[in-house]
Parts: sequence; C-alpha cells; structure tokens
Amino acid sequence: MIDLRSDTITKPTKEMREAMVHAEVGDDVYREDPTVNQLEDLAADILGKEAALFVTSGTQGNQIAVLTHAKPGDEMIIEADAHIFYYEAGAVAALAGVQTRTIAGKRGKMPIEAIRQAIRGVDIHLPTTAMIALENTHNRAGGAVIPPDYMKEVYQLAQAKNVPVHLDGARLFNASVALGIDVKELTQYVDTVQVCLSKGLSAPMGSILAGPKDWIEQARKWRKRLGGGMRQAGLMAAPGIIALTKMVDRLEEDHHLAKQLANGLAQIEGIKIDIDTVETNIVLFDVQSTGLTAEEFLSSLKNKGILGSAFGEYVIRLTTHREITEKDIFVTLEKIAEIIKG
Amino acid sequence: MIDLRSDTITKPTKEMREAMVHAEVGDDVYREDPTVNQLEDLAADILGKEAALFVTSGTQGNQIAVLTHAKPGDEMIIEADAHIFYYEAGAVAALAGVQTRTIAGKRGKMPIEAIRQAIRGVDIHLPTTAMIALENTHNRAGGAVIPPDYMKEVYQLAQAKNVPVHLDGARLFNASVALGIDVKELTQYVDTVQVCLSKGLSAPMGSILAGPKDWIEQARKWRKRLGGGMRQAGLMAAPGIIALTKMVDRLEEDHHLAKQLANGLAQIEGIKIDIDTVETNIVLFDVQSTGLTAEEFLSSLKNKGILGSAFGEYVIRLTTHREITEKDIFVTLEKIAEIIKG
Amino acid sequence: MIDLRSDTITKPTKEMREAMVHAEVGDDVYREDPTVNQLEDLAADILGKEAALFVTSGTQGNQIAVLTHAKPGDEMIIEADAHIFYYEAGAVAALAGVQTRTIAGKRGKMPIEAIRQAIRGVDIHLPTTAMIALENTHNRAGGAVIPPDYMKEVYQLAQAKNVPVHLDGARLFNASVALGIDVKELTQYVDTVQVCLSKGLSAPMGSILAGPKDWIEQARKWRKRLGGGMRQAGLMAAPGIIALTKMVDRLEEDHHLAKQLANGLAQIEGIKIDIDTVETNIVLFDVQSTGLTAEEFLSSLKNKGILGSAFGEYVIRLTTHREITEKDIFVTLEKIAEIIKG
Amino acid sequence: MIDLRSDTITKPTKEMREAMVHAEVGDDVYREDPTVNQLEDLAADILGKEAALFVTSGTQGNQIAVLTHAKPGDEMIIEADAHIFYYEAGAVAALAGVQTRTIAGKRGKMPIEAIRQAIRGVDIHLPTTAMIALENTHNRAGGAVIPPDYMKEVYQLAQAKNVPVHLDGARLFNASVALGIDVKELTQYVDTVQVCLSKGLSAPMGSILAGPKDWIEQARKWRKRLGGGMRQAGLMAAPGIIALTKMVDRLEEDHHLAKQLANGLAQIEGIKIDIDTVETNIVLFDVQSTGLTAEEFLSSLKNKGILGSAFGEYVIRLTTHREITEKDIFVTLEKIAEIIKG
Repeated sequence: MIDLRSDTITKPTKEMREAMVHAEVGDDVYREDPTVNQLEDLAADILGKEAALFVTSGTQGNQIAVLTHAKPGDEMIIEADAHIFYYEAGAVAALAGVQTRTIAGKRGKMPIEAIRQAIRGVDIHLPTTAMIALENTHNRAGGAVIPPDYMKEVYQLAQAKNVPVHLDGARLFNASVALGIDVKELTQYVDTVQVCLSKGLSAPMGSILAGPKDWIEQARKWRKRLGGGMRQAGLMAAPGIIALTKMVDRLEEDHHLAKQLANGLAQIEGIKIDIDTVETNIVLFDVQSTGLTAEEFLSSLKNKGILGSAFGEYVIRLTTHREITEKDIFVTLEKIAEIIKG
Repeated sequence: MIDLRSDTITKPTKEMREAMVHAEVGDDVYREDPTVNQLEDLAADILGKEAALFVTSGTQGNQIAVLTHAKPGDEMIIEADAHIFYYEAGAVAALAGVQTRTIAGKRGKMPIEAIRQAIRGVDIHLPTTAMIALENTHNRAGGAVIPPDYMKEVYQLAQAKNVPVHLDGARLFNASVALGIDVKELTQYVDTVQVCLSKGLSAPMGSILAGPKDWIEQARKWRKRLGGGMRQAGLMAAPGIIALTKMVDRLEEDHHLAKQLANGLAQIEGIKIDIDTVETNIVLFDVQSTGLTAEEFLSSLKNKGILGSAFGEYVIRLTTHREITEKDIFVTLEKIAEIIKG
Repeated sequence: MIDLRSDTITKPTKEMREAMVHAEVGDDVYREDPTVNQLEDLAADILGKEAALFVTSGTQGNQIAVLTHAKPGDEMIIEADAHIFYYEAGAVAALAGVQTRTIAGKRGKMPIEAIRQAIRGVDIHLPTTAMIALENTHNRAGGAVIPPDYMKEVYQLAQAKNVPVHLDGARLFNASVALGIDVKELTQYVDTVQVCLSKGLSAPMGSILAGPKDWIEQARKWRKRLGGGMRQAGLMAAPGIIALTKMVDRLEEDHHLAKQLANGLAQIEGIKIDIDTVETNIVLFDVQSTGLTAEEFLSSLKNKGILGSAFGEYVIRLTTHREITEKDIFVTLEKIAEIIKG
Repeated sequence: MIDLRSDTITKPTKEMREAMVHAEVGDDVYREDPTVNQLEDLAADILGKEAALFVTSGTQGNQIAVLTHAKPGDEMIIEADAHIFYYEAGAVAALAGVQTRTIAGKRGKMPIEAIRQAIRGVDIHLPTTAMIALENTHNRAGGAVIPPDYMKEVYQLAQAKNVPVHLDGARLFNASVALGIDVKELTQYVDTVQVCLSKGLSAPMGSILAGPKDWIEQARKWRKRLGGGMRQAGLMAAPGIIALTKMVDRLEEDHHLAKQLANGLAQIEGIKIDIDTVETNIVLFDVQSTGLTAEEFLSSLKNKGILGSAFGEYVIRLTTHREITEKDIFVTLEKIAEIIKG
C-alpha cells in the first residue's frame, strides 16, 4: 500500500526506538522525568517561549490552550476551516464552554479587517473575545503557509485589543522549512503555540504546548484534568527530542514530493488542481469532472493499492511524508491516470 | 424622548396591568398556577405544538432549547448573525457546551446547499449535528421575514438527516402578520419554537417555548436549573395572555410606521437605505457617507430627543413599536435631516 | 385545603397587587426600570452590601453566585443537606463546572474544623477551594437558625484562607427575626448573599443577590446568560419592595404558629419530634412508629384536607406562612391525631 | 533514595523496553495499530468485558467513564475519599458537569443503606443519579480491598434502580491478588472498569477502560476530545501487554513487604498503626504522638534518604512496589525509629 492519507501514519525511526530503550525516565507527574524535562526545555528554546509542556496530541495541546486562555462564555476568533473548529469534535465548546467565532479565510488567512470587526465590544449581550487562533500550515487550506507578515499584522491588532493569540502549529515546521526561516520568526507573533512531534517529524505521538511560564503552569493543571499527566513519559519524550533536532530538515523532501505529485496531477485531464497552492506536503485536487465523488475515486484508488483522504464531496487530499518515495509518486500518478481513463 | 432603540421598551398596557391585579395564581413550581397553565395551553394551541413552557425571556427560551436538543460536544447550525449566536453572550457554549456552526445568510436565510454541506458525517474527529436554528423575523438582517417555503425546505432537509429544527421566533408574529398568514403556517416547519410576549406584543416580560410534550418536560427541568422556575408566575402570565390574544394584529401598525420611516429616510441625501428590506418593524440604514460613525450619529440624534441603536460601525437600527406615533416618525425624519445638513 | 407544603405558595397581598398596577417601569436590560433600581438599592442597603441584583428565583441567585465566584474545576464547600447541593438539580456542576465538597452539619452548621480541613492545599491533583456556602435558615435542618457567632467563625477562617463566603439566605429574614437582630448582623459575615422575596415575605416571585459592586456587575452578565434579564421587571420588583419593607416583622407570626404546631405534635403519641429544633416556620417530625411512611401519612392527611411535604422516608415537613391561621393549626393537629388513632 | 511515595514511580522493566523496540505499530486514530488492538482485546478478555480502550492515564479513564455514563446535571454516587472525587482536580464537574454525591465509607465501602437513600427520586428539584463509582483497592483507605460480596450487593441495588456502576480499579489487580481470586470475580459486578498498567504493574504509562462495546465506542470519541487519541500508540501498548500478562503475580511481593513494614512500625513507640488494615501495598500510619506533623516527619525522613507522602495532617502513606527490597524496609524502619528517638 502507498499510504498518502496523512503524515500521522509515519512510524518512528530506528533511532527513535533506540532512544526509547535507553531513555532515562522518572515520574513526570512529580516532574522528575529528566527526558521530559529535557524535551520541554529544548522545545521552549526552539519555539522562543519561556516554557513548554509535553502533551499527548495536537488536539490535547489546542484544547488546553483554549481552557487556559478563556473561560466559559468567552469567544475565540478562528478560521472557519481550522482544525480546532472543524476536527476536534466540538471540544472547545464541550470542555472550555467557549464560543467559536469563525471567519472564512483565504488559504487559511482570515481578512485582517474581518478580525478587527469580530473583536467584541463591551456590552451585556456580548461574549468577551478571549483569544484568536491561527493555524500554520493550514491543513484544510491544503497545507497553506501563513507568512510572518500576516501573523505580525494579526498579532499587532490582537495586542492593541489585549487579546492573546494561539497558534495551532501542528505542522509549523513545514511552514518554517517552506519559508526557509527559523520557526521563531513565526512564533514571535503569537503568545502560545502547539506543535506536533508526530506527523512529518515522525515521533510516534505527542505535541508541545509552549508559552509564558505562568501560563504553562496553569496549562499543566488542565493537562492533569484531561488525563494527560503520564508517569515514565520520558520514553515518549525521547523520540520527540529526535523529532525536533534531527527531523525538521527532512520535511523539505516531503514538500518536494508533493510538488512532483501536483505537477503530475496537473497533467492529467479530469483532475483540477492549482499547483501554486501546493506549498508544503499536502496536495488537494478536485475530481468532480471525472464524474466520481471523492469517496468513489478513493475507493478505486484503494483497489489499486493507494490510500488518500476525502476533503469534501469532490476534493481529495494526498499527503507526503517520510515513508513515501519518488517511485510511490510515479505509481500514484499512473494509477490515478488509469482510473480516469476507466 | 422618541425611543426607537427597541420594541422591548414597550410598557404594558392598562389592560395588562388590570389583568395582573385580578389574575388567579398558584405555585407554578408545583404546576398549580391556573393562569400560567392557561397561557401555556393557549400558546401551544396558537403555535400548533403539543406543549408550551413560560420562560422569563427569549434568551432563556433559546438556551433551554439548545440544552434540551443537544449535549456537550454536539454542533448546531445557525445563521452567522442570529441572536442566539451574536447576542446571548456565548451562552450556548457556556451552558450547553454546544459548538455553533455559523453560515452567513442572505436576509437571514442560510443557503440550503450550505446547510446540507454543514451537516456532519460520522467520524471520530467530528461533532454530531444536533440541531439547526432559524430566526424569524431575523433581527440583525433588519427584521427580515423568513418565508414558509424556505422554512419548509430547511425542515425537509433536516428531517431527512434526522436533525431537529428550532425557531427563535422572538418576533415571529411580526413575520406572520407581514406575510398575512397564520403563525402555524410557519411553526409547522420546526420542531420547537420560542416566541416573545414582550417586544411588539407589549407584555412586560416573558417568552414561550413550545414543542413536543416529552421534550417540554425535559425543558422544564433545565428551566429550573437556570432559575426560571417562579412561584406566583400567573401575575406575569396574565399580560402574556393578552399579548397573544389581543396584541398580534396591532403589529401591522408598527410595520406601517417602519415603512413610512424608511420611505422618508430614502429621501434624505447621505442616508443609504434599501426600502425593500424593510418588511416589518425594523429599519436599518447606513450613515457612512455623512462622515459620521453610527455612534456619533446616534449621539447627535439623542441630543435632539431621539434614541436609536448602533448595528455596526456605520449602520443604525430604528425600531417601531406601540409607543411610537406617526408624528414621532415625522419628527425623527426631520431631526435626521437636520443632522445631515449640519 | 390547609396547605402546609411550603411558604412558597403564599399569594401576593392586595397591597402588592396594587403596587404592580401603579409601578413605574422601564427596560431593565437597559437598566432603566426605576422600580427595579429602587428595589436593588433598597435591598443592598438592608443587606449591608454595595450592590444588589434582582433575579427571578433563589436558585437563580445561588447559581449566579457560584458562576461568579468560581470557575470550572474549582471546588465549593457546602453543607451536605444544603439547598444548593440537594435541590438545585445538579446545576452547580452543570452550569458552573464546580465540584461540591459536602460536609454533614449539625442543624445546618458544618464543624469549623471540618471546614478547615476541607480547604484544599496547592497540588496538581487538587481543585482550588473557590467558595464556602452557608444556608440560613437551613431548610433541610428544619428551618434551623445559624447564629452570628458561628457565621463569624466561618468567615474568619475563610478570610484567613482567602476564600469568599456566599450565604443562601432564601429564608434569611426568618433567622434575623428569630434571633431578634438586624439582618446585617448576619450578612456582615459573608461576601455575598441571596435572599428570597417570595416565601414568607409573600412576593409572587424573585430574589435578591447582593455583594460587592464589581462582583454584581459580573453577576449581571451571568444573569443575562441564564435568561434572567427581563424587560419591564419593575412590575415584579414593586411587590418585592413591599416584601422587604412591610413583611419582615410578620414572620414572627409564622414562627409562633410553628411552635404551636410542634407543641401539639409532641403531645400526640406515635409522632417523634424535638420541639427545641423548631426555631422558625418549619416543623419536621418522624412518623415511623405509626407504621406509615411519610408518603402514606401525607396521603391520609391529604384526604383530610391538609397538605405537607415528605422530607425523607419517614420524616414530614410542615411549613407555616401568611395564609395559615391558628385554627388551621388546631385542625391539623386534630387530623393528625385521627390518622394515628386509625 | 528509598522512594516509598507511590508505586507510580516504578520504571519499566528491561523486557518492557525491549518490547517497545520491536512493537509493530500503526496509526491508532485509524485503529490500525496492531499492538494497541492486541492490548485492548487482551484487556477486555482479562476483565471479562466486551471491549476495552487504551487511555493515557487512570484519571483519563475515569473521566471518560463519567463523560460517557452521565450528562450535565446528573449526579454520581461516590465514596467521599475516592480518587475521582479527591484527586482529579474537580474534573468531573469541570468536564462532565456531573455533581458528586459523596458518602463516607468504612475502609472504602459506602454503607449499602446510604447508597440506597442517596439514589434520587424523580422530582424537578433533583438531579438524576446516573452512576455509582467504586474504587478497588481504595487508595485513601490505605489500599483497602473491596470484597466481591460487597461489590455484588452494590451492583444488585444499582441494577434494581437502573444505575450503572463504574469501578476505578487503578490498583484492581492488587485486590484480586490479595483476595486470591480472578479479577473477573470482581469486575462481574460492575458495568465499566478502569485499570492502570503503570503503578505496581510497572508499565511506563497508560490505563485500560473496559465495558460494553457500544459504550466503548462513545468513550472513544470522548478520548479524542480529551486529546487521548495517539498515533503509533503501540509503542506504549507493548509494555502494557507485559504488565497484564507477566506482572500481576508479582504484586504479592509488594503486599508482603507492606506487611513487614507495618509489623515493624507497630513495634515503634509513637507510631499509631492498625496492622489489620494493611491488606495490599499501602501502609498508613499516624505520627501525631511524636509531636511532628506528617510534613515535618517526612522532611526528617527525606534527610535520611527515604521518601513518603502525607495523607493528612498527621498521617503518612508509604507504598511498596517493584523497586523496593526487603533491605529497604529494614532501613526505613530503622530511620523512622531514629527520628522518633530524636
């Protein structure tokens, strides 16, 4: 099987497994796991924040961020297709009691003026705007890169209005690599950030939530309530350290393969794709003119040994990652062409 | 003062006050208040539903509807400018833990296709779509009337997907009067409905929540939790009975005055208004070309003895109601013209 | 029917109804209802607090207090039989997300040492103790009076630990009348207090929540979310003013009747009652030795024209109030004696 | 350091680490991790339930159980010192909106009659009793074993009232080993159960939640919302399989050491201990007559190289586990005696 469903399926590297065997561990609830402590210090440093917290998933990191920034009856401003809103099973309302004020973005970027207008005034009928969330790269926008200039503009507006900004950076390193800049160039424009150690970075699990020291202390208690406090968590932190220190550069390869894939798709009649939108490791394309729905198309593709994801009625998402080779891309293009020819 | 801020400011009529003096009452928590029981039976009958519940406000009725239809982590589909989302201080997230999936509408009407696409499928990442909410008339759309055909279309889609529909009918009788139809022509297309007894109907307070009998029993418990269980509530139900039986027809007068006002405004240079959008008792107009913001314009207007509401940076809302006369409309137009002339 | 189920069933007096007819009103959501403003100022003054808020019920006042004092994941210390815990349908958890740390009291008084031990330390496993709630008089303890000395002791402990104290004073005036002291002698030992205008004071509905000015402003927003913001609420505030100014002294009569009832019951073989515990208008007695359950006993009593409430498997509560006469007490005693004789 | 603070500090065995290196993994959010699937099947089988779910911690398992059994405004019956109530930071109220009805138990066992009385009837003032929680062994009761007869009695009552029973079995295998029975003899009397793989069983992290198949499907969605959905989770499931299959019998050794410790403490003047209460791997004793508080005593102990936990003002908890030897027990007793002699 050529599995292009998601970069989440990447298995840990041999080095990561070895690191687990040798990791020095302790009880992290007592904050005595040296490997977790090392990962958290390292991550805070890389992300340019005072402190960091190891959490079990991106969803957990995002949910803790909302629980810590906002209180019930507050509102958060968020792009209408953002993961926190779209794919976290309504958890921000369920857990934090926070209302989502969604704004449709272009390639993941909400219009600045729309954000400005969405920030609530003071009135008994209105919730308080407690946070703004950004997502970079933006998954449903096809791995779109949010550039630092835009983030700066949002941050300046937010600071003027005294509203904290949280960044869902599940694939933040894809953005920094695509832009060719240090990740701190991006995180300087947010108060708090979540980055995944799995996905393209290939750790088996886990994310980092980073921000001000006091804020992270409060976040730690919410992690405990959600059941994210683990014991000898260093075993999982060890591959995370490798993810952050040795796997970032390799994202370039995923981006390269995604572009190859996109270019190939653009040659196939019946496939609608805008190759300029393929900026990182995610490729979206429309199959409507083939007469098949995304589900039907994917089903045919699966029969030919290739897996992808539906991203709408006629839109398919293919994601490149460490376990995909150039040959896989050729085969994938071939099989897609076959389906269309019928 | 000519107070055009809202129809909520209408004081109870003399007849309503008299009804309060003579109302037979009991303890409504024990369900022994005959006047409340009479109002609830009457309202259920008028709205074509099995049962009804007297609540203290439109917000309470709407919130109880969400609490009873949905559970934490569910999602509701709602127009992006709807009162429940915009003006209830984030309560659906805070109290019910329900995520709001907003869709921008045209004159209060969400595109049917957009609703269809917003209904979630079954997947571990997705909330369950637990309800669709409509608002008729739609306040922020300028008192827009949602016609029965549209409501029918939404309802058919919702029923096919097994999703209940709730109607925020805070000003529902304005819609039925404007359409010249029985209110049941509208409520037949929803599972549950909230209507206000105050506003144009002039009762001092209170709303009705109506729906299936079992559902109303559950709603009753949520009313108790919110503190809406009152004792000798018949005193407040008595004016509500008058509101439903004697005040509906008079809404026509408010609509007439609103049209007069709109027509007059359309004559004034500097005021931007689309008179076709004035369907009921709410008049929205834009003052941007006067060089004033809505707040500045309203401030000048207040100095001249007239009150209105801001509905955006440059948009003003004026609302007609029982305490407004034709002469008030003339004076209002005169004063607005004066401001513009400077 | 002689209705001894609760003092909540008292109908408003003629004077109260008259006050409603003549009450000057406005839109209280805009804070323009002069009668509501008058009631709130009066109540704040009587209770010795900076500000007050008119709410629709005791439950609403208590729930808003918890929502305003505490945040999700906090804990409140409360007597195990307190109304907020026992009779508000789990609302403190449902609405505020607050955990109830119950302590069994003696006649409504939790042991001071138990409170001290229940206040949580700082640890990631522990909720924060965000408030202590008292209830005076204590309903399920049989209308027990909580004396100022005890309240002082609790308050001093609470202040030393920086924990606010809220008083559920649904029947607080019964306590002050029974003690022969000004109600401020009691309220001085709490940060916030809720008192009912209905019950013995006979207003048709409504309660007062009082506390610091800033705190009441936040409470006002929670009232809006719960749907307690009403329009021409002055109609209901008017009887509340009479309740506070003219009905407090008459509670003495209810207490007198309750004692008569208790003394009479003590003479009846088969009834177990401790007359010393009858301090206000509530009389609890045990019917187990009659061989009947409370429900069975009440059913017989109902057949004889008398209503009461079950307060446990064998315990009955009878409550005196404005609509009960000395003759009613005699008849009640007679009928109870008849049931026992069989 | 001799670390007797908790059995949570046990590091994974060499075999566990090796298992991690070789574990076959997949993406568990897609349910394609064979090792996780194997662990879940194995655990369901051992616990005698239809299905099981791997969660990151005992707290997460318990919280998901409450979220799945109950809805906001419901009530759960739970022992007053239970972990879910005492040590999970108020999460059942914060996340699930569920009220905790605590009952003080004897050695972890709530009186059956008290449970019966605590189950709520149907009334608008009352929450619905949605679940009963037991804890076995009971941590704060000193590792007390809850015998199957008692569990059966609770279960029969619960079933008669249609209330599900959840078991917090963080240390359930300690109970089955101490009783010398199969763990299914205990789990047959509950609907759902959580057991920890860490603690005495020595896995680095993780717990199992088991119950009916449909119920586990709902639980899975709550796990996702809490952020407990992980990717290549098989790496952590692998040691869990060893924990369940090879580490249960060794708990006997911990119990043996705990009894040795208890017997030794009973010989030391100034230490108050009831050796009959030491049934598993937890030893509680009182140091009040030494003139020291628990914190002071622990501080002296730490200076002598021994770590323990405070369990009250004067009560100390010492916990035996895989990393404690018989010699450690002797040293501990020696050092404690030294402190007392001064």
